Amino acid sequence: MLIHGDPLSGNCLKVKYTADHLGLRYGWQTVDVSSGGTRTDEFLAVNPMGQVPAVTLDDGRHLAQSNAIIRYLARGSGLLPDDAYLQAKVDELLFWEQYSHEPYVAVCRYQMKYLGKPREEREGWRVERGERALDFMDQQLRSKDWFVGTDCTVADIALLAYTRMADEGGFDVTRRNNIIRWIKRCEEKLAIAARH
Amino acid sequence: MLIHGDPLSGNCLKVKYTADHLGLRYGWQTVDVSSGGTRTDEFLAVNPMGQVPAVTLDDGRHLAQSNAIIRYLARGSGLLPDDAYLQAKVDELLFWEQYSHEPYVAVCRYQMKYLGKPREEREGWRVERGERALDFMDQQLRSKDWFVGTDCTVADIALLAYTRMADEGGFDVTRRNNIIRWIKRCEEKLAIAARH
Repeated sequence: MLIHGDPLSGNCLKVKYTADHLGLRYGWQTVDVSSGGTRTDEFLAVNPMGQVPAVTLDDGRHLAQSNAIIRYLARGSGLLPDDAYLQAKVDELLFWEQYSHEPYVAVCRYQMKYLGKPREEREGWRVERGERALDFMDQQLRSKDWFVGTDCTVADIALLAYTRMADEGGFDVTRRNNIIRWIKRCEEKLAIAARH
Repeated sequence: MLIHGDPLSGNCLKVKYTADHLGLRYGWQTVDVSSGGTRTDEFLAVNPMGQVPAVTLDDGRHLAQSNAIIRYLARGSGLLPDDAYLQAKVDELLFWEQYSHEPYVAVCRYQMKYLGKPREEREGWRVERGERALDFMDQQLRSKDWFVGTDCTVADIALLAYTRMADEGGFDVTRRNNIIRWIKRCEEKLAIAARH
């Protein structure tokens, strides 16, 4: 498998975390989004949606969208429950992450880290929704160690990617104790080095 | 099954289209989003994410997120291919719809139809991305009748819901012939009355 990705993108790191944990063999093709790397004819042949990450499977077929990729890779492993309802609960969180978390937490990070926007100039509505997303996660984690079932799933991986970098978007995760403990739990489970 | 939804919401209509096509028996519990219906304790017990649609299954368990729901309901039917890779291609479009289509096409519609915003006051960046999403769909449909495989899937249903109402968000779909033909195809397949 070849992963087409940007190593600083949380969406791309989801695929790396999943592939590493599953022990999959893969190559990494760095795509520089800021210099138009997702707009070349070569990349659009891989993913006409023009977004990273995308993967080229060993049979030459392509797949895009971070959460679709990690769900596909996780089939038959402990990262995706066998039970159909629990799989749907994983999907529920994967869609929630892309709609109600990433556009706020990740986009604030992008604007601060890559566009150099000062923290106080972040868009108010985006900040508010990002805070709400983190509050929701913290509340959910009051009564459980993992988001679905009794072990780490791709729902945790999808939510981990940008949550552990939320400070780079001006969000204070340190006061959310359940999230802090869950991040450590995920880092141990996935053998990801702690950031701090 | 009980569907908790707003009959004017495209996300909720996806669940109705799917359940109707599959011949599932269900009740419909109308939730009035504009008057705070998704913020009541009663609703939050069904879906702590505070969004419609949500469903209560016959065993009392709940499921939220439109695309997670329709994917779950479609298991074992023609609306979801058996092949794992084709399922992942369906997922790819379900995630794309929620990230790159709905926040632009559906939100412009919401702002015009529900908040009374004039067409010319729509946010420029949202309009641009909505136009780009519709262009992508039209381009994809140049060479195929359905988005994945050779028949209608939940990917078509997810994309249909707001695309067929895009005019209410100020988008002109009539000049995109492939989309127009695909909408008719979907309406026939799903036995949905044409809007015009």
